[in-house]
Amino acid sequence: MRRLLVIGIGAGDPDFVTVGAVAALNEVDVFLVLDKGPATADLTAARRAVCERFITHDRWRLVELSDPERDRRTPAYVRAVDDWRDERAALLEQALTEEVPDGGTAGFLVWGDPSLYDGTLRVIGTIARHGSLDLEWEVIPGITSVQALTARHRVLLNRVAGAVHLTTGRRLAQGLPDNADDVVVMLDADLACRAYADQDLDIYWGAYLGTEDEILVSGKLADVVDEIAEKRAAARARKGWIMDTYLLRRPGAEA
Amino acid sequence: MRRLLVIGIGAGDPDFVTVGAVAALNEVDVFLVLDKGPATADLTAARRAVCERFITHDRWRLVELSDPERDRRTPAYVRAVDDWRDERAALLEQALTEEVPDGGTAGFLVWGDPSLYDGTLRVIGTIARHGSLDLEWEVIPGITSVQALTARHRVLLNRVAGAVHLTTGRRLAQGLPDNADDVVVMLDADLACRAYADQDLDIYWGAYLGTEDEILVSGKLADVVDEIAEKRAAARARKGWIMDTYLLRRPGAEA
Repeated sequence: MRRLLVIGIGAGDPDFVTVGAVAALNEVDVFLVLDKGPATADLTAARRAVCERFITHDRWRLVELSDPERDRRTPAYVRAVDDWRDERAALLEQALTEEVPDGGTAGFLVWGDPSLYDGTLRVIGTIARHGSLDLEWEVIPGITSVQALTARHRVLLNRVAGAVHLTTGRRLAQGLPDNADDVVVMLDADLACRAYADQDLDIYWGAYLGTEDEILVSGKLADVVDEIAEKRAAARARKGWIMDTYLLRRPGAEA
Repeated sequence: MRRLLVIGIGAGDPDFVTVGAVAALNEVDVFLVLDKGPATADLTAARRAVCERFITHDRWRLVELSDPERDRRTPAYVRAVDDWRDERAALLEQALTEEVPDGGTAGFLVWGDPSLYDGTLRVIGTIARHGSLDLEWEVIPGITSVQALTARHRVLLNRVAGAVHLTTGRRLAQGLPDNADDVVVMLDADLACRAYADQDLDIYWGAYLGTEDEILVSGKLADVVDEIAEKRAAARARKGWIMDTYLLRRPGAEA
């Protein structure tokens, strides 16, 4: 039997790590890290820094696995994600078997929270359904980049009695949700909100939230969208990658 | 000048408190607590327990203010909340003036995260706009009950490339959102999801999340809605209050 701890370490700032995550970190024998792309080195270094700051013994190891390439060009996006998940699952299952002793505890360090736009729980579900490994797993929640965004901007996510819609850049490009005054956009490579700059919307934008590279911009969408696009492009060119998110809000009577 | 720290302490479990919140707790001279209703005593006790567990000095005080009654019967719900917020703001402004010395630090301990369905930031905004007190404030994010819910059920909030809709019981009663496969419902006094029990939906429900009274139920909505209603009623009768939330999910190809 192997135990897995899926540990949300929060979005960027080590101060976002919870007391429960610190306890969980200290129970792990082997951390498995699956990343790829330009941000990989930075994210792995950040995870390692979290381990070094919070683990009080030296009996832990961090194993980096090379993540299979995902086909991002195919229009069958969900299918591509499924295939990729199967490959990931096979890779992780192998690593769990080879790197983690029977009776040992493996740790997955998830940026933000394991429940939000992260694939770790799906991959573990795939391994569990495959049935070759005896697994027991637990999820430790973490502060998401959405919460980092609202905290840094000191704003609420919702209006009084209002709804909040969390979506992706791809979906936002298809239309602005009409059943929520607050729309959070994640995974947006192209600043899809620009298409709505003619509407009366406020934007609260943040990149590299919780890190020393954090950039915040807020204002009327029409007034600040160019500034955001420029800062975004410059930061991406400088660092080689960007992680950003934003809240779009229809202004109303409520302050 | 007075400094305010709006500290999210997470939803129930003291292990949800972040390292940054622990640091913030230790900077506070006076904690101001505004609650009312049947849960007040329990929530205040829980906040006090968090202070006692994490604060390493004894120079802190906790001041309980009696929250003005909110008129919950009026159909003009938003207006009632506005009036109530003005009263709350006046009460808090007075408490900040009288209880917190100039140059001191006040703390507001928010259940969950200050950005989600919590009124503290609005009240502080009202005080700041009033302009009589010189205030500087900071927000420390916390784990929401939504994250506690998904972590305990070990599920994701979103489907691959999917949207998530966060809404209230009142709004859900008006219709099931059609632009998200995952709908999180908060502040639902009447289990509004029952109206959709004829649809193919999964539910992940939790009450008193993160506490020793935690109750979890999941399954097909039609199969478990009566069980949830019974457990909900029994728990509410026993404790005198209930805090619960749930995720409704349209089942799809994705596991």
